[in-house]
Amino acid sequence: MSQFNRIKQEAYEANMLLPKLNLVIFTFGNVSAADRSLGVFAIKPSGVPYDQLSAEKMVIVDFDGKIVEGHFRPSSDTKTHAVLYKHWENIGGISHTHSTYATAWAQSQRDIPIFGTTHADHNTVDIPCAPPMTDEMISGNYEYETGFQIMDCLREKNLSPADLEMILVGNHAPFTWGKNAEKAVYNSAVLENIAQMALLTEQINPNAPRLKDSLIKKHFERKHGPDSYYGQ
Amino acid sequence: MSQFNRIKQEAYEANMLLPKLNLVIFTFGNVSAADRSLGVFAIKPSGVPYDQLSAEKMVIVDFDGKIVEGHFRPSSDTKTHAVLYKHWENIGGISHTHSTYATAWAQSQRDIPIFGTTHADHNTVDIPCAPPMTDEMISGNYEYETGFQIMDCLREKNLSPADLEMILVGNHAPFTWGKNAEKAVYNSAVLENIAQMALLTEQINPNAPRLKDSLIKKHFERKHGPDSYYGQ
Amino acid sequence: MSQFNRIKQEAYEANMLLPKLNLVIFTFGNVSAADRSLGVFAIKPSGVPYDQLSAEKMVIVDFDGKIVEGHFRPSSDTKTHAVLYKHWENIGGISHTHSTYATAWAQSQRDIPIFGTTHADHNTVDIPCAPPMTDEMISGNYEYETGFQIMDCLREKNLSPADLEMILVGNHAPFTWGKNAEKAVYNSAVLENIAQMALLTEQINPNAPRLKDSLIKKHFERKHGPDSYYGQ
Amino acid sequence: MSQFNRIKQEAYEANMLLPKLNLVIFTFGNVSAADRSLGVFAIKPSGVPYDQLSAEKMVIVDFDGKIVEGHFRPSSDTKTHAVLYKHWENIGGISHTHSTYATAWAQSQRDIPIFGTTHADHNTVDIPCAPPMTDEMISGNYEYETGFQIMDCLREKNLSPADLEMILVGNHAPFTWGKNAEKAVYNSAVLENIAQMALLTEQINPNAPRLKDSLIKKHFERKHGPDSYYGQ
Repeated sequence: MSQFNRIKQEAYEANMLLPKLNLVIFTFGNVSAADRSLGVFAIKPSGVPYDQLSAEKMVIVDFDGKIVEGHFRPSSDTKTHAVLYKHWENIGGISHTHSTYATAWAQSQRDIPIFGTTHADHNTVDIPCAPPMTDEMISGNYEYETGFQIMDCLREKNLSPADLEMILVGNHAPFTWGKNAEKAVYNSAVLENIAQMALLTEQINPNAPRLKDSLIKKHFERKHGPDSYYGQ
Repeated sequence: MSQFNRIKQEAYEANMLLPKLNLVIFTFGNVSAADRSLGVFAIKPSGVPYDQLSAEKMVIVDFDGKIVEGHFRPSSDTKTHAVLYKHWENIGGISHTHSTYATAWAQSQRDIPIFGTTHADHNTVDIPCAPPMTDEMISGNYEYETGFQIMDCLREKNLSPADLEMILVGNHAPFTWGKNAEKAVYNSAVLENIAQMALLTEQINPNAPRLKDSLIKKHFERKHGPDSYYGQ
Repeated sequence: MSQFNRIKQEAYEANMLLPKLNLVIFTFGNVSAADRSLGVFAIKPSGVPYDQLSAEKMVIVDFDGKIVEGHFRPSSDTKTHAVLYKHWENIGGISHTHSTYATAWAQSQRDIPIFGTTHADHNTVDIPCAPPMTDEMISGNYEYETGFQIMDCLREKNLSPADLEMILVGNHAPFTWGKNAEKAVYNSAVLENIAQMALLTEQINPNAPRLKDSLIKKHFERKHGPDSYYGQ
Repeated sequence: MSQFNRIKQEAYEANMLLPKLNLVIFTFGNVSAADRSLGVFAIKPSGVPYDQLSAEKMVIVDFDGKIVEGHFRPSSDTKTHAVLYKHWENIGGISHTHSTYATAWAQSQRDIPIFGTTHADHNTVDIPCAPPMTDEMISGNYEYETGFQIMDCLREKNLSPADLEMILVGNHAPFTWGKNAEKAVYNSAVLENIAQMALLTEQINPNAPRLKDSLIKKHFERKHGPDSYYGQ
């Protein structure tokens, strides 16, 4: 029995949530789960339909993107996952989808404004859209550079991956992360929901104001602050 | 056997309607059911996923927001429910969701215009959007103040909670109520439907007129007036 | 065994299609089926949820709107159905819904332009929106007048109920009809589909042209003309 | 046992994917599967509901549109399929739907701009919208001419059917193709997804830029180029 069984199972279950939550069609998404003590992560094999997945088919990769175990080629976005795990030491799961509304915001190359408490329940800033990469980065080690593009975008805004667990990559689609794979997928679904409501808000009122600071603070802290009183 | 079993069961069943009617994702909603003779209500425990709910897990709270019975922490919005039960003596259920279209109207800080008979079948006025609270109210007893914000909004419009069983809280999301928990959830679903159709109406015709008074009166009265002829 | 069993069963089955086709929430719709030889129609009882319907609960009404058989009060829109059956001798079923997109067009008080062949497969004209009635008609015999409003709208456009099996009633919602109840419901679903695509078409291209006459003619005739070659 | 059993089964299964993927209501679509060695294709019978289909009911037609075997009349769009199979020697399946967003773009008579990598994963150009045909073509051999309209549109853009497996026919709806029937249906679903995201992108940002060339090239080649690394 493989020492990687725990993260294979975790990655498998989290990947299966994507179609269940209507976040992907066909194979347009991938989720990974990391084992920090072993320095590896389990990720979806590339191009395998969700109804043919199993925990055994997950591919084990280290944080430099090298395959450690598995009979399949890993997701084509594997290097992006590897870069983020290597540099962000406290995350345990990453999810990438082409969910409809979040992807439309990424294609529009706009940050998603913070319009309401649904957004503030999860973070305190506009969801940033990282700009498309330079032609050199794209034609070079593309998926690897995507990881750095994501990290640079957060760094420029003085945000840590704990402050904000979701981002849009311009012209591409969203990436989300969290303490484990299930939380990363949860964040994918929350982002899709926020993205749809933000577009509708602007359609209802093109001058809709950003959420006021006091309300951002209140909602975030009641869920995440030292005196939080949400959940059990 | 607890004397609260009836409202625990009622609150449980009404909460389970939220995902069934596509009004929530994850734990983004809560419903309560009141027992007027006992002076308490049963409400969803905070942050517990719908597929792990049971009637036994409902929390019993009095109209001052004090926990009377239950092993779980109640919904973070419990004080809003308590305030409304305390001051509106004829309501028996309250529902709070972050349903997509109603929340988008709340975020846009606009009242929902009465455009058609679907709306007039349920009430005779634009659905009001209560303005965001002051910073003092927000940083103070926030959920308690949300209840007063809702009541003040109705009072200023000379509306009773029987005239109108639904409201938007600016930047936040909708609250609905009714004679019992099931009716409150019904109103959440109706509001979501009205909210979607109102946005579409404005998109089809930016100059769409409000419903004329005679038609508002007719449709409301055929369902709710002394000579109503809708239903059995 | 009642002589009305055939139309009770037909009306029951057609009513049950409404939630299956996502054309109604709760009780926001009603379908009827006529028996021309007996001069009556079977219609949904008012306000009864679809999951509690049965063929036995259908109400039998004559073409003047008088109840002939049944333990329940018929749909509040019964008189509209009666008027249409009485004056349009070749229709055998009527369907009324508050489906989202068709209702939004009705609320916007605009005809639905004929933009494509999906529309032309079913009729050759813009779907008309009958204007809201006068205050006198509304405060008088409202549902009865709604039937005349529908007939007048077709008459003014020189259309017979065979030319066009669907209409919007301004500020209210769509009515559709056909040779039987199932066909009437089919038309409700087609209208909802056309209504959604027409709004999207205008959003993609505000100057989208109406379908050209030759294409309208071709598509309608290949399905409905003397030399039709659609279907078996 | 018929020598056509393989393509009948293939066409049947691919047709059944259309309702499963929410690409059709009622009978608004048809898929065919070709057998190049026999010079025929199997196609859906006209107007038969999907829940009454079976492999046996598929109709066998040659590349001139002549029926070879079958008890039913073939799809009214059969000649369009025949023309494409006859002239495009490397395709093995064709799918035609009236899916909501793709059809709205066809009705708007606009090409779908390439805004993101979801689009570039499948092809490198804006999805063209073939202009509506002349009145002569429409009143003449309409479905046959539709095939030529599609081919002409690709030829004018110097595109082969391998470069681009999807197109919009102005005022009508999309056609897609591929190496087999399943791939053609896959392309129908991808096109619908791209069509929805493109509209949303323009709504979020009316000045959203087209995807840059380096990113188009990268995403297409990682899936389809000689050094592709997507899939197994």
